[in-house]
Amino acid sequence: MSAIFERVALIGLGLIGSSIAHAARRKGLAGEIVGYARSAQTRETAATLGFLDRVADNAAQAVEGADCVILCVPVGAIGAVTEQIAASLAPGAILSDVGSVKASVIAQALPHLPDSVQLIPAHPIAGTEKSGPESGFAELFDGRWCILTPLPDNDVDAVSRLRAFWEGLGSMVDIMDAAHHDRVLAVTSHVPHLIAYSIVGTASDLETVAESEVVKYSASGFRDFTRIAASDPTMWRDVFLHNKEATLEVLGRVTEDLFALQRAIRWGDGDALFERFSETRAIRRGIVEAGQDTARPDFGREKPPQA
Amino acid sequence: MSAIFERVALIGLGLIGSSIAHAARRKGLAGEIVGYARSAQTRETAATLGFLDRVADNAAQAVEGADCVILCVPVGAIGAVTEQIAASLAPGAILSDVGSVKASVIAQALPHLPDSVQLIPAHPIAGTEKSGPESGFAELFDGRWCILTPLPDNDVDAVSRLRAFWEGLGSMVDIMDAAHHDRVLAVTSHVPHLIAYSIVGTASDLETVAESEVVKYSASGFRDFTRIAASDPTMWRDVFLHNKEATLEVLGRVTEDLFALQRAIRWGDGDALFERFSETRAIRRGIVEAGQDTARPDFGREKPPQA
Repeated sequence: MSAIFERVALIGLGLIGSSIAHAARRKGLAGEIVGYARSAQTRETAATLGFLDRVADNAAQAVEGADCVILCVPVGAIGAVTEQIAASLAPGAILSDVGSVKASVIAQALPHLPDSVQLIPAHPIAGTEKSGPESGFAELFDGRWCILTPLPDNDVDAVSRLRAFWEGLGSMVDIMDAAHHDRVLAVTSHVPHLIAYSIVGTASDLETVAESEVVKYSASGFRDFTRIAASDPTMWRDVFLHNKEATLEVLGRVTEDLFALQRAIRWGDGDALFERFSETRAIRRGIVEAGQDTARPDFGREKPPQA
Repeated sequence: MSAIFERVALIGLGLIGSSIAHAARRKGLAGEIVGYARSAQTRETAATLGFLDRVADNAAQAVEGADCVILCVPVGAIGAVTEQIAASLAPGAILSDVGSVKASVIAQALPHLPDSVQLIPAHPIAGTEKSGPESGFAELFDGRWCILTPLPDNDVDAVSRLRAFWEGLGSMVDIMDAAHHDRVLAVTSHVPHLIAYSIVGTASDLETVAESEVVKYSASGFRDFTRIAASDPTMWRDVFLHNKEATLEVLGRVTEDLFALQRAIRWGDGDALFERFSETRAIRRGIVEAGQDTARPDFGREKPPQA
């Protein structure tokens, strides 16, 4: 594939930023890939791992002359980073991001930007529970969706180029407006993460059951929640602070439904429980059929070696 | 390994029953393995798959002459099945089970049993989201815990033999009292399953987000919940009806903690969120270090082929 951008600048070099670099190199999507991270240690690790053509000394320097800039920082940092780089952005450059919340990204970034810059927010639905520059890999986006939430006045050609870039990274691309994105992701991602964080926290706080017992017998269900509850705390704090309305709305529905099940247990209503538990199998089937999860039992987990 | 029991009878031939048969054969733990399932189709499948030495026509016939009988039926069926087989149990036989709740099993079974029978409840902490006789496999219990909850008047030798049998099946064995078991499992298994069932159900009921969107973008977290929400509805209905007190108690704590996070989101308390999200990583680490989950990112899931 020929290069889609002459120079891509990545601000933030964690799991997503480093994976974009790996995946762009795999297909030669960028003439040059420049990167910057706030932490000196991350910049050093990136230089050592060698997934960039150049590591910049600051964010403004990194974006100079780039025709595509992708902010791979926690959602809460978008406003400050955009302010830092705005004056250095090339005319006509695309400014994008990878955040899990989109309306807030637009609200934070737009006021700082000259009209000549195309702000096209993006959200790759891909990741693992690992973070940091050493956790990235070229295949992360393969077969995963990436949602673009362009603005009404975006240049059509710019949106097409960013779309082609994400397809080149391995993704399938969908387009929707930012507000709908935030509602969808509240359901599929934000509230599930909040609940996982919550229940894992609760389990470690109980007085009647030791944490060692929770760990020991976690294969009975609990461990499934601990994976996403091991995700990056800064990123997730920002997600909830910046997608407050949608998260609270979905959370209200979840707790309402949970209370209905709780009531069924208290009153011994086995039929209500059975009915609910039967409906949910269909969704799992749909996800497997849509190629969004493995059909292998237990996620195809390998058993770790025993002590 | 030489046979631990002369004849093992399995009542119920789903995932667990069939896996016991496969695993017992692998090590020659039983001179003969006899099985029975209520459904004629399950009995036929078991006969075709050939993991039993003999398929019996009814439960009473299956247990005749067996020195170990294991009930692999939903917890709610324990009383009725025990009543059916009680008169046919051999003197000195061990009667065990595999249910996820233990105090209720004792309460249901004990009244039907002659003093000559050793009731030793057991719970292998192993399984997948699949059910039925074709889903069983010999390695299911390898490296997984099995909890025995013996009664105070159990014969020491009988408990040792059942322990050796489970170790032969591949398990590590722990012993605790039934009430404590039920509290521990409420935390590590029952409440996680209830929450997974609940949130998966909620997601399919929302008006503002289509179910197709939930499926499509499920890789962002939601799909992790759908695996255990695809578990057997009958089994899980019975678990909640028979471990009501402990489930409701833990559920109360979970919702209390969830409300605290909800409040932190509403009031924009980022520090409270960050603190909670940082604590939970340690538990994940503990589970991986204890050999109870894989260290590979994303459970080491293989990506399914894309459409």
